[in-house]
Amino acid sequence: MMAFRKWQHSIHLSFPQLMRSGSQTQIRSVSPRCCIVPVHRMSFTTASGPKCKGTQPELTSKKHAKLKRGNFARLSGKHVDHFQSLLGSASQVLTEDLDGYNTDWMNIMRVSKILRYCNDQKLAVVPQGGNTGLVGGSVPVFDEIILSLQLMDKVISIDQMAGVMVCQAGCILEKLDEQLADYNLMMPLDLGSKGSCHIGGNVSTNAGGIRLLRYGSLHGSVLGVEAVKADGEIIDCLSSLRKDNTGYDVKQLFIGSEGTLGVVTAVSILCPQRPKNVSLALLACSTFDDVLSSLKEARNQLQEILSAFEVFDNDSMMSNQTNLKLMNPLKEHNFYIVVETSGSNQSHDEEKLNAFLETVMGSEIINDGIITTEPSKIRILWGLREKITEGLLHDGYCYKYDVSLPLAHYYRLVEDMRVRLGDRATRVVGYGHVGDGNLHLNVTAPAYSAELHSLIEPFIYEYVAKLRGSISAEHGLGFIKSKYIHHSKSPQAVVLMKQLKKLMDPNGILNPYKTLPHTD
Amino acid sequence: MMAFRKWQHSIHLSFPQLMRSGSQTQIRSVSPRCCIVPVHRMSFTTASGPKCKGTQPELTSKKHAKLKRGNFARLSGKHVDHFQSLLGSASQVLTEDLDGYNTDWMNIMRVSKILRYCNDQKLAVVPQGGNTGLVGGSVPVFDEIILSLQLMDKVISIDQMAGVMVCQAGCILEKLDEQLADYNLMMPLDLGSKGSCHIGGNVSTNAGGIRLLRYGSLHGSVLGVEAVKADGEIIDCLSSLRKDNTGYDVKQLFIGSEGTLGVVTAVSILCPQRPKNVSLALLACSTFDDVLSSLKEARNQLQEILSAFEVFDNDSMMSNQTNLKLMNPLKEHNFYIVVETSGSNQSHDEEKLNAFLETVMGSEIINDGIITTEPSKIRILWGLREKITEGLLHDGYCYKYDVSLPLAHYYRLVEDMRVRLGDRATRVVGYGHVGDGNLHLNVTAPAYSAELHSLIEPFIYEYVAKLRGSISAEHGLGFIKSKYIHHSKSPQAVVLMKQLKKLMDPNGILNPYKTLPHTD
Repeated sequence: MMAFRKWQHSIHLSFPQLMRSGSQTQIRSVSPRCCIVPVHRMSFTTASGPKCKGTQPELTSKKHAKLKRGNFARLSGKHVDHFQSLLGSASQVLTEDLDGYNTDWMNIMRVSKILRYCNDQKLAVVPQGGNTGLVGGSVPVFDEIILSLQLMDKVISIDQMAGVMVCQAGCILEKLDEQLADYNLMMPLDLGSKGSCHIGGNVSTNAGGIRLLRYGSLHGSVLGVEAVKADGEIIDCLSSLRKDNTGYDVKQLFIGSEGTLGVVTAVSILCPQRPKNVSLALLACSTFDDVLSSLKEARNQLQEILSAFEVFDNDSMMSNQTNLKLMNPLKEHNFYIVVETSGSNQSHDEEKLNAFLETVMGSEIINDGIITTEPSKIRILWGLREKITEGLLHDGYCYKYDVSLPLAHYYRLVEDMRVRLGDRATRVVGYGHVGDGNLHLNVTAPAYSAELHSLIEPFIYEYVAKLRGSISAEHGLGFIKSKYIHHSKSPQAVVLMKQLKKLMDPNGILNPYKTLPHTD
Repeated sequence: MMAFRKWQHSIHLSFPQLMRSGSQTQIRSVSPRCCIVPVHRMSFTTASGPKCKGTQPELTSKKHAKLKRGNFARLSGKHVDHFQSLLGSASQVLTEDLDGYNTDWMNIMRVSKILRYCNDQKLAVVPQGGNTGLVGGSVPVFDEIILSLQLMDKVISIDQMAGVMVCQAGCILEKLDEQLADYNLMMPLDLGSKGSCHIGGNVSTNAGGIRLLRYGSLHGSVLGVEAVKADGEIIDCLSSLRKDNTGYDVKQLFIGSEGTLGVVTAVSILCPQRPKNVSLALLACSTFDDVLSSLKEARNQLQEILSAFEVFDNDSMMSNQTNLKLMNPLKEHNFYIVVETSGSNQSHDEEKLNAFLETVMGSEIINDGIITTEPSKIRILWGLREKITEGLLHDGYCYKYDVSLPLAHYYRLVEDMRVRLGDRATRVVGYGHVGDGNLHLNVTAPAYSAELHSLIEPFIYEYVAKLRGSISAEHGLGFIKSKYIHHSKSPQAVVLMKQLKKLMDPNGILNPYKTLPHTD
């Protein structure tokens, strides 16, 4: 821990005590499936671990009884035999025992042949990566075939000088970041689910996360994509060039379209220099205006070394304490802020961070704080922010929302929701990437209740739409939010999207019922 | 000028003498047209000022005699009357006197009505911004109507806290940057043509430039686009949110598609914090390997403050000296490097830059150098890099290429071209954004010669294609490079592009003969 004289009074915690439970549980998806599997018993509610304590998640098709299955073929023995012949004897088409199966057969030509066949036979397909999504985008709704990219997990090349990595879609984000460390490079994105999410899934869902503030969105960082269209046509735009203005940038179609326009099989990504030192400050303040004042000051004083600016409220902290037995290292306040800096010169970075802290503590914007440069302690402090999602599940049922709002209205939504729901909710919490205007609003209750649900929705979507915010900032629309697209996109834009879907996937076999509103 | 003890020997220039001629001439396009004008006498060769000394540029349709005019309607009095009725009495449809006309009539509804009418009547249209492109993308080939966005030049909003500016397409880049200075913000892109290029044109062509190294491409920085499709349909994706994963990111279709898929009428753009201080170093070295070693060291030591890393060869410097009477402030060397740093703390930045310079001069990678932090001197040193294009025109005729190459092959192309052309060329020069792998290769000769042309092309495209480079890194394809698209894009990708064009503009009225290869 760094000793900053001026605010030593606030360092009142010995770090080893921070986590009373020693719990290291990570939010994980159910075990990813491999090969091609028709799955009838999966539903989106399994995508992010149990949402209901002690009960089995309900089937999507049961929960949405009015939803009609598309006019797709049903899988038969003939189809399974054909897939088996495509994959060869060393591989296996799985139809029942879906866990932990592993063979080494996947490549782009096979993805192409599988999709071509499915398209000809009108068999619906769900492309699946690490299955860590939160909106039911990567799991089947009816009896769609799962096409898992799990076995396409090879790094193709790393160019240290250019800072570019090319790899297959099934690579796990955290493993890629570890490999890049040897080249003094890093992934331009970081997510809570990094231990299991796939880069192909990240690209297909335009994943955000905590580094977006510094390194921007994947629409900028992804230099190339190799994808397969529904008809099996391979679109090779796997360029590793930073600049290439030759024709339309068609790879953008596959970034964030949730596998509905094509299956991403490989990506080329711009990787920034790995910072030589990282510092983390956990700060506390009384009002959301103080949070915004701190953000403004951080932008001004930390500029090029600011790598994250996250907020969470006291209700989030209380859940951490009650549900996960994590300790609050600071005195209780209404808001907590995580400020991370990453730079190339430790003494410069410390000096800047120190000056920033002097300003915000001197002007009483910030009332308490703790900082560290030790990696293990940084992980513990980040845990307070990253484990909120996990902690909330212990309340019973969790209604999850992920919105972008103008900063002036960012936290007002949480306060208004709290008033609206009153005692019906166990907790109404707000946390997220305030530096990007991205709020995670979560409501917990002992169990799912249609009444509570109807008080939250469509209220929240209308609230966000009125402020021209986004009803899904980084999670995407997937299955459960696709019907709300009109709250964030104009009718003309949605028509254009539907035209694009029709063009790229005329039979609609790719990830049906996702992203775009269902039409009968 | 900063005094860096260790290399004071290299500061051997008094700055006021740097520019002997005092010339401040800027590369400018011909005066932009306003309103709607059918122009028969314009050709792409006027787009970037004269390419031939003392002669009138040849008409495109004359130079490309085999090119067939599309099956479009020809403009008649009836059409002109209709446009006049759309625009009202305060406006004017120009058909002859095209210079300096100025009225205040343009808005999105009118653009929509104009395009709807043109689409119904099958009248071809060229959307035009500042007309500073280099590939004939913004000028008519036959008798297309020019739709100038010049009068849509309003800034709609600047959000200092979020760092987002929303403005109309006709705003001039440099003026936007000046306005942002009041908010401690800056444009994320900077180009030699900033004094006349429009933000709408920048977005439509996915402009690159010297800040791309630091702030990334417009596919990442542009948060929102308002555009009008060929049929007059308005696509309002003018979001100013950093994160919005609701459906397909259709705005990406308009970024870099050169106005062939729609006319960009407004943009929302992420603007980084304006750095508090900028330093510039002009360095000299003997080999291209030294350039790459310097780049590697700059990435390592300057990391987060590195804002530009540009190279130019001695032939470029010689042209500056001979043609523009600019003085070389360093001893003659084979290569010159411009290293720019931008940061929030002057003493930190100087310390980092100093350490970098000590390393590269100590290890004799760099043999000579000069640095400054004074804005006026920074402009003069930047001028040595930015005026190269202008200087080369004085040789007579200039063949211009803009490619991306793997860094190991970056300068080899220039050397190979020099050997190939021998005495036939006046100069073969290489310069550009080496930090992004983007090389500008220019060949000059006293006058245009078909023989020299045929020695350069298709040789250069095949050379670049073999190395999986890009045959147009930042200039786009426009009219003159569209037929070479296959050298950088797969047949399947080009088919997909053609399908997108057909979907968005079924009559092909938007910027015909551009971007995609012409088909009869």
